[in-house]
Amino acid sequence: MTVNFYAIKDEVRILGFDDGPFKRGDKNTLVVGAVYRGGRWMDGVMSTRVSVDGLDSSEKLIKLVADRRFMDVRVVMVDGIAFGGFNIVDINRVYEETGVPVIAVTRHMPDFKKIRAALKHLPDWQKRWTLIKKAGLPKPVETKPGKRIHIQNAGISPPDAESIVKISSTRSLLPEPLRMAHLIARGIVSGQSRGNA
Amino acid sequence: MTVNFYAIKDEVRILGFDDGPFKRGDKNTLVVGAVYRGGRWMDGVMSTRVSVDGLDSSEKLIKLVADRRFMDVRVVMVDGIAFGGFNIVDINRVYEETGVPVIAVTRHMPDFKKIRAALKHLPDWQKRWTLIKKAGLPKPVETKPGKRIHIQNAGISPPDAESIVKISSTRSLLPEPLRMAHLIARGIVSGQSRGNA
Repeated sequence: MTVNFYAIKDEVRILGFDDGPFKRGDKNTLVVGAVYRGGRWMDGVMSTRVSVDGLDSSEKLIKLVADRRFMDVRVVMVDGIAFGGFNIVDINRVYEETGVPVIAVTRHMPDFKKIRAALKHLPDWQKRWTLIKKAGLPKPVETKPGKRIHIQNAGISPPDAESIVKISSTRSLLPEPLRMAHLIARGIVSGQSRGNA
Repeated sequence: MTVNFYAIKDEVRILGFDDGPFKRGDKNTLVVGAVYRGGRWMDGVMSTRVSVDGLDSSEKLIKLVADRRFMDVRVVMVDGIAFGGFNIVDINRVYEETGVPVIAVTRHMPDFKKIRAALKHLPDWQKRWTLIKKAGLPKPVETKPGKRIHIQNAGISPPDAESIVKISSTRSLLPEPLRMAHLIARGIVSGQSRGNA
């Protein structure tokens, strides 16, 4: 099942999540959500904390997405499907429990062999690996001429997901909601952040 | 002495500060700085904490403004001159110690009588009152037809300050760097924020 977008407006409301940096020994890390109208401007910010290498990121995101103040959000984006180390976001579950489609964006194609090897040091590693496989293989999208990023999606058709990613990547290769969530999370946790766009 | 702006570019780099909400009993509160190009897009975020009703806000802002990573910032904006309750920002001192002009913006004309009365409950109230007087009387600027906000400035001529405030107020009555700093500070401290622009 997918949500059908009959026409995608330039100002489609997107909620983009990224996590902040954390240090060895930190129990949890900041996750910031930036509410955007397309790739144009930001009109809301939300935040939560997820446990480092924990299993609570899907639940935490679902809670934020379901907030009634943000009911006009049409798409959720996540910067990769792993927050706070290997706290894997189950993008299908986020879609199923909120009704809002999810697009995961990564700049480069993940190295799944390496990820699998690293996962094995963690408890419940099979559970995490299952979530990663369930999210499907990232597909390339050209957001600037000759430059590709990679996306996975849940609850939305690949062409619709691709359109939304392209519409919202106005300033850099990445969709603005994710670029902003990244800048904010870094700036709050480490005291400063600077884009290189 | 003021900094002369021979021509103000649409993408003049502005660093806008606002504080987050705090509860009775909190010792300090978050202050967020949003680095903006004119009123167009954000390309950096910084943060610090100032003590509630303390006297450290000028010093904290000076430290952030002087950060070498942000040397291309041409103007600092503050959302009012009181952060964390009555922790008054000395806009002249911030200018003198950083060389970067400061514009304080308030939506409404402050009620100085009320402020003075409230200040008297605090230690060092004369010191705070002196800083408020030193900042000068806020002057109206029309940022949308028929709608005025009020500004105080240090290190910049009134016409240049007015131009920069107008250039950067692209989405609402307030300059974008301040609208963003406000959304971020609220979203981080209280878990969510929503603009009404």
